Amino acid sequence: MTTPPRKLAIATGGGDCPGLNAVIRAVVLRAHAAGLEVLGVEDGLNGLLEGTGATVRALTPLEVTPILGRGGTILGTTNRCSPFAWRDPDGTTRDRGDELLGRARALGIDVLINVGGDGSQALSLELTRRGMTVIGVPKTIDNDLDATVETFGFGTAVQVVTDALDRLRTTAESHDRTMILEVMGRHAGWIALHSGIAGGADVILIPELPYAPAHVARDLMRTLGGGRHFALVVVAEGCTCVGGEVTQRPVSGGLGPSKILGGAGQRVAEEIAAVVPELELRVTALGHIQRGGTPTAYDRLLASRLGVEAVEAALRGERSVLVSSQPPDIKTVPLELAVKKMRAVDPSGQLVAHARGLGISFGDL
Amino acid sequence: MTTPPRKLAIATGGGDCPGLNAVIRAVVLRAHAAGLEVLGVEDGLNGLLEGTGATVRALTPLEVTPILGRGGTILGTTNRCSPFAWRDPDGTTRDRGDELLGRARALGIDVLINVGGDGSQALSLELTRRGMTVIGVPKTIDNDLDATVETFGFGTAVQVVTDALDRLRTTAESHDRTMILEVMGRHAGWIALHSGIAGGADVILIPELPYAPAHVARDLMRTLGGGRHFALVVVAEGCTCVGGEVTQRPVSGGLGPSKILGGAGQRVAEEIAAVVPELELRVTALGHIQRGGTPTAYDRLLASRLGVEAVEAALRGERSVLVSSQPPDIKTVPLELAVKKMRAVDPSGQLVAHARGLGISFGDL
Amino acid sequence: MTTPPRKLAIATGGGDCPGLNAVIRAVVLRAHAAGLEVLGVEDGLNGLLEGTGATVRALTPLEVTPILGRGGTILGTTNRCSPFAWRDPDGTTRDRGDELLGRARALGIDVLINVGGDGSQALSLELTRRGMTVIGVPKTIDNDLDATVETFGFGTAVQVVTDALDRLRTTAESHDRTMILEVMGRHAGWIALHSGIAGGADVILIPELPYAPAHVARDLMRTLGGGRHFALVVVAEGCTCVGGEVTQRPVSGGLGPSKILGGAGQRVAEEIAAVVPELELRVTALGHIQRGGTPTAYDRLLASRLGVEAVEAALRGERSVLVSSQPPDIKTVPLELAVKKMRAVDPSGQLVAHARGLGISFGDL
Amino acid sequence: MTTPPRKLAIATGGGDCPGLNAVIRAVVLRAHAAGLEVLGVEDGLNGLLEGTGATVRALTPLEVTPILGRGGTILGTTNRCSPFAWRDPDGTTRDRGDELLGRARALGIDVLINVGGDGSQALSLELTRRGMTVIGVPKTIDNDLDATVETFGFGTAVQVVTDALDRLRTTAESHDRTMILEVMGRHAGWIALHSGIAGGADVILIPELPYAPAHVARDLMRTLGGGRHFALVVVAEGCTCVGGEVTQRPVSGGLGPSKILGGAGQRVAEEIAAVVPELELRVTALGHIQRGGTPTAYDRLLASRLGVEAVEAALRGERSVLVSSQPPDIKTVPLELAVKKMRAVDPSGQLVAHARGLGISFGDL
Repeated sequence: MTTPPRKLAIATGGGDCPGLNAVIRAVVLRAHAAGLEVLGVEDGLNGLLEGTGATVRALTPLEVTPILGRGGTILGTTNRCSPFAWRDPDGTTRDRGDELLGRARALGIDVLINVGGDGSQALSLELTRRGMTVIGVPKTIDNDLDATVETFGFGTAVQVVTDALDRLRTTAESHDRTMILEVMGRHAGWIALHSGIAGGADVILIPELPYAPAHVARDLMRTLGGGRHFALVVVAEGCTCVGGEVTQRPVSGGLGPSKILGGAGQRVAEEIAAVVPELELRVTALGHIQRGGTPTAYDRLLASRLGVEAVEAALRGERSVLVSSQPPDIKTVPLELAVKKMRAVDPSGQLVAHARGLGISFGDL
Repeated sequence: MTTPPRKLAIATGGGDCPGLNAVIRAVVLRAHAAGLEVLGVEDGLNGLLEGTGATVRALTPLEVTPILGRGGTILGTTNRCSPFAWRDPDGTTRDRGDELLGRARALGIDVLINVGGDGSQALSLELTRRGMTVIGVPKTIDNDLDATVETFGFGTAVQVVTDALDRLRTTAESHDRTMILEVMGRHAGWIALHSGIAGGADVILIPELPYAPAHVARDLMRTLGGGRHFALVVVAEGCTCVGGEVTQRPVSGGLGPSKILGGAGQRVAEEIAAVVPELELRVTALGHIQRGGTPTAYDRLLASRLGVEAVEAALRGERSVLVSSQPPDIKTVPLELAVKKMRAVDPSGQLVAHARGLGISFGDL
Repeated sequence: MTTPPRKLAIATGGGDCPGLNAVIRAVVLRAHAAGLEVLGVEDGLNGLLEGTGATVRALTPLEVTPILGRGGTILGTTNRCSPFAWRDPDGTTRDRGDELLGRARALGIDVLINVGGDGSQALSLELTRRGMTVIGVPKTIDNDLDATVETFGFGTAVQVVTDALDRLRTTAESHDRTMILEVMGRHAGWIALHSGIAGGADVILIPELPYAPAHVARDLMRTLGGGRHFALVVVAEGCTCVGGEVTQRPVSGGLGPSKILGGAGQRVAEEIAAVVPELELRVTALGHIQRGGTPTAYDRLLASRLGVEAVEAALRGERSVLVSSQPPDIKTVPLELAVKKMRAVDPSGQLVAHARGLGISFGDL
Repeated sequence: MTTPPRKLAIATGGGDCPGLNAVIRAVVLRAHAAGLEVLGVEDGLNGLLEGTGATVRALTPLEVTPILGRGGTILGTTNRCSPFAWRDPDGTTRDRGDELLGRARALGIDVLINVGGDGSQALSLELTRRGMTVIGVPKTIDNDLDATVETFGFGTAVQVVTDALDRLRTTAESHDRTMILEVMGRHAGWIALHSGIAGGADVILIPELPYAPAHVARDLMRTLGGGRHFALVVVAEGCTCVGGEVTQRPVSGGLGPSKILGGAGQRVAEEIAAVVPELELRVTALGHIQRGGTPTAYDRLLASRLGVEAVEAALRGERSVLVSSQPPDIKTVPLELAVKKMRAVDPSGQLVAHARGLGISFGDL
């Protein structure tokens, strides 16, 4: 790009995440200081497509100033439907990518700042291939993206889970119970691992370390042996049995599997109860509470910096990059990296070793 | 009682509740200032029975000073087994009341301060009938006791639910979803009603106002019509359908019905989905998080005052009374009142009318 | 009033208070359901006067729905200048009351809902005397209004102070220090008393109970004698020495007395240090943090109910009344009561006796 | 060291900091799992010296399990007096280092884990020079130690300040005020900078960037110009005027300068008022609230990992090292580094540039 950009657009895609509004605010504040206009695209990229009910609107500094601490995204989001494989109500699929690019051109959008996870960044990539300048901002509450050291929202989720563990501990303690708390993490156990350590869990079950129910039961009984009468178990929703399939519980009624409550926590409770029926087990699933609400100070700072740096990258004329946290700085990396490699917990890494050093069991050995 | 008491005992029974430790602390501080000793009875009244693993121990001001803000109870609690109908492991039942009274006499206990709900106070009553002096302190997180205007723990539960609604709102808003939050309240809808108003719910379902799923669906669609794209539904666990039975979902595996997660929230979700399948519904059940953790300032104050007044009542020579909040004072009422009448939400009272005035639907009309 | 009202106005006056937005929201929601329009008056009543920079604007349900949990007031507020004694920049004073009434009539305002403390309600009274229908909603963060059992915002302030005491305790404990926390309360000690009990203070100094520094020092040394190495002192900003004048510390520079930080806390620290110089004293003043931020669940409920009931009163044709919390109901009382009598802490009441029962010193005996 | 250690001691020195108890807990849990005993030294290193009132005591896993989330330190701390330059009550100074070493040897202490800031680690260094094995754990709430990327407690302080800014914003907004919040940071502006960005401050004053009051006033007026009517200013206690001396305000009465409340915030308010007297300024100083209370999840995790790794280092036979956070791992570095170089905010670094990008003024240009 030889001429500096004059108009940016920003979109937020995928599941919501505390800090999205802080990114939007930072982009608008930085852009306006540089004399750029910013358009907000509603509902992921849908605002650039006809007939979706979504649209684009100009964003002003005055409007975004107060949203720093608000959860959610003022632009709305969506985790359904790619513009490149748009599903119509009649079930047919079509490519609406060129329609989207045409609309963006017509609006005078020079750069799109696309905030989202690997799904959204795959769309970013395809858009750059078709000629658009896109700066990606990584977003995954699970913190499982290899292209960035950390992502906003994750710390907030960990704090919410830790607060819940603090509450569960006192009730567990008074009643001599074992509390099982199911948390987010289908593919990676970061939330369970961080909050489990921070909240003083006795057992943590994560996808990266398949567990044996008999070992979980044994380690619980050991915990309950030494003068302790209660225990806390944190279960990532994607944790799996050694050698076992994750069998989705059958669901009654009209709600599909993606809509049901819990699952892993209840399953683990039943597995433990099968081995040691005398345990007083109770299950809680935090669900969507983990991804809503005001972001922590840390996540607000991180999100704000990513937003500013996205505009800086646009001003520098970069295209097809992802802003990435490389403490203490924010840098840019090729957008391809955002869709390449997930970052899983390393079962033989230091963090897991430290957890074991604190006496935490993963039910694996 | 003609001679002033010299030794008190305190016990906490039933489900745990934020503020129990504040009561214990207040009793010990007030009693010691009056020159009385205080014994703590562990695990409800079990500490006064042989072979339960529980015992009694002296409580000192220095020990209880830091527990004001801690959830749970340092004495432990239990919600199983009455001393008057003790179930032995072999299944037989026997009356251990006289054993308990003998042990209390042997320990020199002049007055028992018994903190607990209607179940615990029924035991208090029977103990007074057998000659013991008992001062009851009411405890019900559901706030459904008619003998006292308010109970500690309730406000904390309402605050926890309201915080959860604040978090759910932002995620509902970003995704155009309807979030269903199941909260405590088997027989009374106080928690659902207070937190639903405080958290801006659109629909509140409580046991006192049986709902029709079709009406719930209709009112949700009306909410979603006027420019709003999301909705919040608070469901008390004991809410019931008009004319309908509450059908407990069948549970797989080794966990009994009392141990399963959720139920009402999931059921309501399925009922709504049957009428308006296009709604994006998500269910969360807060479970035990509602009854653990640090009490609010209000609950700490209330619990502390009840504890002080229980000792004052003992010093005044009262017996067989319940301390009761009658704002702005704490008074005593006959212990019989504690087990007599539950306080339910009045469907035609001002609080429900105010909720309707805010546009909240109960799904009933 | 013989015809039902068609248009309401709402204004918020005096110092801000958590819950103001909840009142505004409730008024708008209830009024719109009844088919009434609502105008919001900005910056107290200034919005009804020319040349103040403030104006009036229509408020819609969609706009107020999200403000339930937000601190402050979307209408702005002011605690300067009465319309009846308006100070012009040149120092002259004039009566702009009839201008205000004329403007209100021109706008078609049938009823003014005026949210504010005794100052604001004195204006309400004068407006009713001149022919306007006014419904007052009481507001005082100090909870010192006799015409209502409780006011919103107070509970939030108490919670904020209690949270601060929780934090101060751990640092006091680690360093063997005596922490002095200055809180709001110029004329009444309610915040200091409630939060002091809830936060486990050892000494509470309030306006209603003049203290002797020597007694404060003596009681602190007693606290520090029995195995305790730290102490917490809560000081209401209006507390006074026995027989002593409150001497405002001289202030350097361009800030007047009303703008300076702290005062009472620092003064008490110096008084104690004069008696027991060996104490490790530290002073903190919470200042405006006590009146900002999201209201507690309790205050949201109370504020919402007051707002609904204010509209109900308007619909019933009441005029010149104050909505008043008389638990469990909200009622109306004559507006005159709002400016008549302050509610102070009763030095010989049960609440103070309970505090003493917990070992708390007021430095008075 | 050729034989593995059998007994560890742990001490906490300097100002308190959220996370100290998490370190203690981690050390005890990890050490016990390895078969080591742990002694807790009270009040810094005083517990190893006669006649200080402090002592040493064995720490057990059962005792430390519940302290993970508690602020302060169960061992107590001190920030006065080095054992190597011990000040006696009569004013004389003497070296008690050998007494301390002798006592440690007599107790069979193989390794001392010393948690503290640069002052404490200078003592650690001297102890290693005299033959003791010491593993340092860095602690500075200001996050200004160059030898480690991050320190526990800092994040908690930033969160507390950010929460306070959230509360101040709503009150500033309602009253059209400029709120000045003074925070910790005598030599480094990290807390002010992080919380100022996270809390949406308009002006941040830090020691590393001397400010001109006229520039602060100018930038405030610019903020207040564009439709905004309020502003937030965060002031680090060590911030200085361009070319100016920091003039400590004269203090009345018996409290020395180190004990007074605030200072910088009040000074800045007066400086601004001298330039723009029409601004509605209000000052708040958070004081010790910033360093007490429960640590954030992040700080609990970091502190726990540092504690485990300190024991690992002892088990590996390391001596005279500091455990250091080098994300994603905890490593060890020479203890000398802990006392060498402070880490200040880089005025020309990316973080400051990002803050400027958000429109934040440092009052420097």
